[in-house]
Amino acid sequence: MNLLLLEDADFVAADRVVLAGRRLKHLQEVHRAAVGDSLRVGRLGGLMGSGTLLELSEQHAALQVSLDQTPPAKLPLTLLLALPRPKMLKRVLQTISAMGVPRLILLNSYRVEKSFWQTPFLEPEALREQLILGLEQARDTVLPEVIIEKRFKPFVEDRLPGIAAGSLGLVGHPGDFPACPRAIEQPVTLAIGPEGGWIPYEVDKLREAGLQPVQLGERILRVETAVPVLLARLF
Amino acid sequence: MNLLLLEDADFVAADRVVLAGRRLKHLQEVHRAAVGDSLRVGRLGGLMGSGTLLELSEQHAALQVSLDQTPPAKLPLTLLLALPRPKMLKRVLQTISAMGVPRLILLNSYRVEKSFWQTPFLEPEALREQLILGLEQARDTVLPEVIIEKRFKPFVEDRLPGIAAGSLGLVGHPGDFPACPRAIEQPVTLAIGPEGGWIPYEVDKLREAGLQPVQLGERILRVETAVPVLLARLF
Repeated sequence: MNLLLLEDADFVAADRVVLAGRRLKHLQEVHRAAVGDSLRVGRLGGLMGSGTLLELSEQHAALQVSLDQTPPAKLPLTLLLALPRPKMLKRVLQTISAMGVPRLILLNSYRVEKSFWQTPFLEPEALREQLILGLEQARDTVLPEVIIEKRFKPFVEDRLPGIAAGSLGLVGHPGDFPACPRAIEQPVTLAIGPEGGWIPYEVDKLREAGLQPVQLGERILRVETAVPVLLARLF
Repeated sequence: MNLLLLEDADFVAADRVVLAGRRLKHLQEVHRAAVGDSLRVGRLGGLMGSGTLLELSEQHAALQVSLDQTPPAKLPLTLLLALPRPKMLKRVLQTISAMGVPRLILLNSYRVEKSFWQTPFLEPEALREQLILGLEQARDTVLPEVIIEKRFKPFVEDRLPGIAAGSLGLVGHPGDFPACPRAIEQPVTLAIGPEGGWIPYEVDKLREAGLQPVQLGERILRVETAVPVLLARLF
């Protein structure tokens, strides 16, 4: 936790917060914080700054905060991701949140196992928990939007062309395609497939929606590696 | 497992292998393979090609193999990594192996907890197991070399200058430094710090050894994300 993220309910005055639970435990056990310490803080959806620890007990921590810095810019990106297996989903959510992806669409694909859609990690509170861990890691305050699309065809036919319009549309896909471009300045819509890749029908449909296949070389990467690799190359 | 990796001991003839254990289980449970199926195979440290499944039972699988393709090129990189916590070490080993890092040096740092050096994941067999998972993922056959350096100062003073000579030496480090360069053609020696970063003394010593600090922007990334991000940007 490189940023202590504060929620509206933590504020007992405009410049004062009281914390308990996970963040209190982290302050005590990881930061080994003491009264008087200054910590980096941020208000969820708002500004970042510093906080001074006024009180610290087994039950709660009280801080006086001063918030005057804007959070880092997001990437100009909509990321479509074939739903990964639950364990990988958790890590990918943290990664995209930490890297500044503002909008993630979790999409079905032929190679997504049906059971993946049953995971409790797709519940709004569970998604939020992982995204917050990413914000705390990277020092950001703005939650990414996560959209769940369980039906590939209607989404790709009806909604994707509008989402991709005005952006550079790309599909990460191994094969005889152009290399993924580097250091793009314009907005990007990027689709990353499941383990095993998109099936040809899906690549065709994504193409029709305005996304062009690009590849990263001979090596097949896990989704949790492909995501940071593609983002680092593009931006 | 995108490549069935064969070891010398699997070969019962020049073009025939017999497998048991983890790979047999994977063939049965994940690939749901059947006699007659063709699979991508590679010989550890050698060529890649295809194998035809001749026999499949509860006890073993027999394949006829034809090996005629060279594995993908490695990156021109020596990667120094402050030893990550054990759980992260496992994933990082898979990632660096999958991405084609030929040489990894696991190094001590002030912010590496002493207990991390006690992990069984540093045993040669345990390192090898994770590296092999990375090769199977990415379709490569050549194990990276892993060097363990428990003492920062003598390594950085005595050995690192020789390792970095003739390469572009870089230290990933947040702060007021140049941005990490992109699409480098020359060999690189790259050092990535622990969670919390290198301490100033360590940055100074790495500089003296020929490594220049570069940064990736305001966002602080976990080591397991920083590794693929830095490699994707550099190569």
